Amino acid sequence: MTLHIDQESAPATSRLRALLHAGAPIPVIDAYDALSARIVESAGYRAIWASGLGISASFGLRDNNEASWTQILDSLELMAEATSVPILVDGDSGFGNFNNVRRFVKKIGQRGLAGVCIEDKAFPKANSFAERTHELCPAGEFCGKIRAAKDSQPDDDFVVVARTEALIAGHGLDAALARAEAYRHAGADAILVHSKATTAEEVAAFAARWGGRAPLVVVPTTYADTPADTFQRMGVSLVIWANFTLRAAIQGIENACAAQQANGGAPEPGDARYAPLKRVFELTDEQELRAAEQHYMPAAEDGPAPARLRAAGS
Amino acid sequence: MTLHIDQESAPATSRLRALLHAGAPIPVIDAYDALSARIVESAGYRAIWASGLGISASFGLRDNNEASWTQILDSLELMAEATSVPILVDGDSGFGNFNNVRRFVKKIGQRGLAGVCIEDKAFPKANSFAERTHELCPAGEFCGKIRAAKDSQPDDDFVVVARTEALIAGHGLDAALARAEAYRHAGADAILVHSKATTAEEVAAFAARWGGRAPLVVVPTTYADTPADTFQRMGVSLVIWANFTLRAAIQGIENACAAQQANGGAPEPGDARYAPLKRVFELTDEQELRAAEQHYMPAAEDGPAPARLRAAGS
Amino acid sequence: MTLHIDQESAPATSRLRALLHAGAPIPVIDAYDALSARIVESAGYRAIWASGLGISASFGLRDNNEASWTQILDSLELMAEATSVPILVDGDSGFGNFNNVRRFVKKIGQRGLAGVCIEDKAFPKANSFAERTHELCPAGEFCGKIRAAKDSQPDDDFVVVARTEALIAGHGLDAALARAEAYRHAGADAILVHSKATTAEEVAAFAARWGGRAPLVVVPTTYADTPADTFQRMGVSLVIWANFTLRAAIQGIENACAAQQANGGAPEPGDARYAPLKRVFELTDEQELRAAEQHYMPAAEDGPAPARLRAAGS
Amino acid sequence: MTLHIDQESAPATSRLRALLHAGAPIPVIDAYDALSARIVESAGYRAIWASGLGISASFGLRDNNEASWTQILDSLELMAEATSVPILVDGDSGFGNFNNVRRFVKKIGQRGLAGVCIEDKAFPKANSFAERTHELCPAGEFCGKIRAAKDSQPDDDFVVVARTEALIAGHGLDAALARAEAYRHAGADAILVHSKATTAEEVAAFAARWGGRAPLVVVPTTYADTPADTFQRMGVSLVIWANFTLRAAIQGIENACAAQQANGGAPEPGDARYAPLKRVFELTDEQELRAAEQHYMPAAEDGPAPARLRAAGS
Repeated sequence: MTLHIDQESAPATSRLRALLHAGAPIPVIDAYDALSARIVESAGYRAIWASGLGISASFGLRDNNEASWTQILDSLELMAEATSVPILVDGDSGFGNFNNVRRFVKKIGQRGLAGVCIEDKAFPKANSFAERTHELCPAGEFCGKIRAAKDSQPDDDFVVVARTEALIAGHGLDAALARAEAYRHAGADAILVHSKATTAEEVAAFAARWGGRAPLVVVPTTYADTPADTFQRMGVSLVIWANFTLRAAIQGIENACAAQQANGGAPEPGDARYAPLKRVFELTDEQELRAAEQHYMPAAEDGPAPARLRAAGS
Repeated sequence: MTLHIDQESAPATSRLRALLHAGAPIPVIDAYDALSARIVESAGYRAIWASGLGISASFGLRDNNEASWTQILDSLELMAEATSVPILVDGDSGFGNFNNVRRFVKKIGQRGLAGVCIEDKAFPKANSFAERTHELCPAGEFCGKIRAAKDSQPDDDFVVVARTEALIAGHGLDAALARAEAYRHAGADAILVHSKATTAEEVAAFAARWGGRAPLVVVPTTYADTPADTFQRMGVSLVIWANFTLRAAIQGIENACAAQQANGGAPEPGDARYAPLKRVFELTDEQELRAAEQHYMPAAEDGPAPARLRAAGS
Repeated sequence: MTLHIDQESAPATSRLRALLHAGAPIPVIDAYDALSARIVESAGYRAIWASGLGISASFGLRDNNEASWTQILDSLELMAEATSVPILVDGDSGFGNFNNVRRFVKKIGQRGLAGVCIEDKAFPKANSFAERTHELCPAGEFCGKIRAAKDSQPDDDFVVVARTEALIAGHGLDAALARAEAYRHAGADAILVHSKATTAEEVAAFAARWGGRAPLVVVPTTYADTPADTFQRMGVSLVIWANFTLRAAIQGIENACAAQQANGGAPEPGDARYAPLKRVFELTDEQELRAAEQHYMPAAEDGPAPARLRAAGS
Repeated sequence: MTLHIDQESAPATSRLRALLHAGAPIPVIDAYDALSARIVESAGYRAIWASGLGISASFGLRDNNEASWTQILDSLELMAEATSVPILVDGDSGFGNFNNVRRFVKKIGQRGLAGVCIEDKAFPKANSFAERTHELCPAGEFCGKIRAAKDSQPDDDFVVVARTEALIAGHGLDAALARAEAYRHAGADAILVHSKATTAEEVAAFAARWGGRAPLVVVPTTYADTPADTFQRMGVSLVIWANFTLRAAIQGIENACAAQQANGGAPEPGDARYAPLKRVFELTDEQELRAAEQHYMPAAEDGPAPARLRAAGS
């Protein structure tokens, strides 16, 4: 049975939860700041992945907890404020112990984020694709973090995804399955099994033995050419394209710089590779502000209207 | 005579000042977060425009002082930390009165930004291209802001650019020149004369009558197809391309979303429109962290090396 | 009729609203950070005044919008998190125009603050007791701010207090009453009439002519020796003691420094003028963390308990 | 030989370093926000201890890394801005690994703090006086943190104090001495040996065997009645009274609340236990702002002076 509450009137938390049980893989794309989140929503995605790698990179920082958790939080708040589709937050390893998890989840819940994914790595964390050996958090300690997250959630539909790095760390399939089961018992709403294999086989093997005990989430960064119906057959709920808006923005900017330098002047004015300025104003809803000015700053009874109220040209 | 201190060993402030007196128009492109700033530096630009419109937009906010000045400051700090070329900060109208200017300039100086541009509009400000009438700050009050900025600068080479919106506000050329002269007397290091005409003629008329009394800065957003040698003849020092990385990033992300949706899978894996993941790691200097781990976390005398120190695969 | 919903189970907003209609003057004392707020709650007060002067002073800053509104917000969030009694926020003049008011109210609502007081002064504001002439915001523009605040509130019980500085600015009683009436029509839930007279007569004259059209709030800083029953007869709802915890803390610290210097050693160990260290731990609920450690970090199934879990001495 | 550069013209870092070599124990008292720091300076102290416990408590939080390092940083910046005497920062365990130490030290250096103390506990840390067993950081890893701190300092005089919790953790005197020696070799400018014994004997035993290899710092919270000449004989450089302004402020506020409740009115107006309001204005240098208004906002040539410039009553 498929739930049908993925609509704007429902809370973001309920809508994210519904996607986990939609019965088909839902593509979710990354955002790394409020602007990219707004674009992703505008493009029609039903959920957004607030990428830790992306947010760090937008800060010019590495994905190793160089940014403080409140710096991340400030960015997440702006992302939630700019959008209405649910945002699943990359919560890294929880920024410390169970107590730091409690604070983080409480704060993102207050700010309207729809769910969090925490992973069983140590703090400070390393990015999964960096060429290092990765320490895992003991499973028992990590279960405490999951319980702490669930106990701190803003409502019953808030989603806690437990991400295991057991395959990345080379612990093998049995260990990954044992951790996933422990995390499910601790209250996780879904399991993200991370893999840096170049095909979906590793994840598929996991899925086959997992048998749908809880919704599955995958991040096919390294096996991106997997056909969509493969994820369908595996019973995956969310397919997270984890760093594509980030990489597209980088490439776009690099091209703009190159074009400006080639031209000597503006970077190819009118070129379709640059969104028009009015698109910026659309994305930040400039029109709403103009309407609000009319509404909240009418010609006052106690004197002439402030100059900024008069229509330009009048 | 042209100064030749635009080199990495000089302070950012001195390098920005040198560019104002370089004897030829220097192209400066916008950045709106640390990542875009890093890309701009990597592309070889000699200075960066920290765009108020861009930073606001990256926050999903409008360019009307919706973001607090400390939110802007936090972003500027990350931009300065991620780069070594000088950054000229779009300081809007100074976030209040002379006292707010003092605090802002002191704080950006402390964080290594190289200069600030403040404009003679009221607070809260409206973006110059929004279709509204714009109030100007009285010239005398604005001169106080310029003096306040100069008195708060971190060193003698810090650059304060006074931007007049007199042409945008429809006050005419005489008013613009009178304001520019007053601002120069108050201590401004350069004048930015803003125009939303669709050709450079308005700005050229200003430049002709200005006669090089202080370096000129232009922002040819609406007259972007002006040939580079026109700015040379006008004696312009800095040509600011004020929102091109922003617009390129937006277009890049919109294209990525469209491609992913067309594919049903990854947004065209391998496509040259997406920077490779390793480019992200390059831009955030991942390599430095790995070297630092070797340097600061060697095999300890008091036990086995932490797992994260051992080379992957060993 | 008196409402009786001033109990812990009701939302903070509802509890603050109930106090406005309690039928007797409720004393409210200032707090300027989370710690002072916690102490005030612990002392049994039913509401807290989050003082703008106090928060600024705790930052070492002047009460002239030197702190950004997000710096204030961060402090308010900590205050709300540390307490359960309702907090009425000193929102100064709203940090800009109606749009800044919208953002501020939305954010404090999200963080659990119970109400806001905004005043009809210009931005940046000056403290009411500083010896300056004070500009007032045009009444029509200020009514727009009140409507903006009401439209941005988190629930129907959130309280918006309109504070008029008409008496402080020397505009007289008629002007103060006219503004209060306009603010009430615009949606204000209560009127704070500010006075720096040395007796309650000015405020009493206002109250007599106001005739209970909306709840009244007073800040008797300069007429602090007014007997409590005077406020009762005037029909006042809240009596705000606006800077007493601030001034008590300052005096306490000055005394501690003097005592240490007189002693050459500790500032009179055991002296009743210094709260014991365990009082610090009580105020920050250290006990809860210890219980949570037991709950969330039990002896793990996958190895020995972390050292920090074992009872000291075991 | 005693250095004599403890004067206002020297950088804060140099002045703190000079105190370490002054040849007599210097009393240093805690501050927990900018206001308390300003009071401590005003009382004549030559250095300030920016207490981690105090800052956390002022946030209503526990001393267990509940506050993020950037929240701490923001408070430290305000403390440095409000004062000119050197501030030694309680840097806890460095907020993560060597890399987090690098970021923290770089940032506090930029903001004008004079030194940092880091301790050899794990992250997240527990307060030393909480009744728990404390994990220590391996000595080799901690030496890496010290080297990282020294490599990130703003100038050569910046002070890095290495604090060992070996005695607190029950590892004994030999272990404490071995760690201190390792930390000195790694570059620590001074050693803080922490003890929660109720007399100075434990610390004195350490000092005797240490033999002045590097300056010693003590925090006699639990042995506060130790006579000053005992520290002199031990060769201690800094005696940190680590939480006295905090505890004095708490007691002062509790007394103010009790007095207001006893009175029914103002908390004993005129009572010497409350600093007068003008003391608040003195501590935040209100006078400077008034002078600056005269300087930066003179009667403008282009119209009447803004109302806020005219003297009150004129």
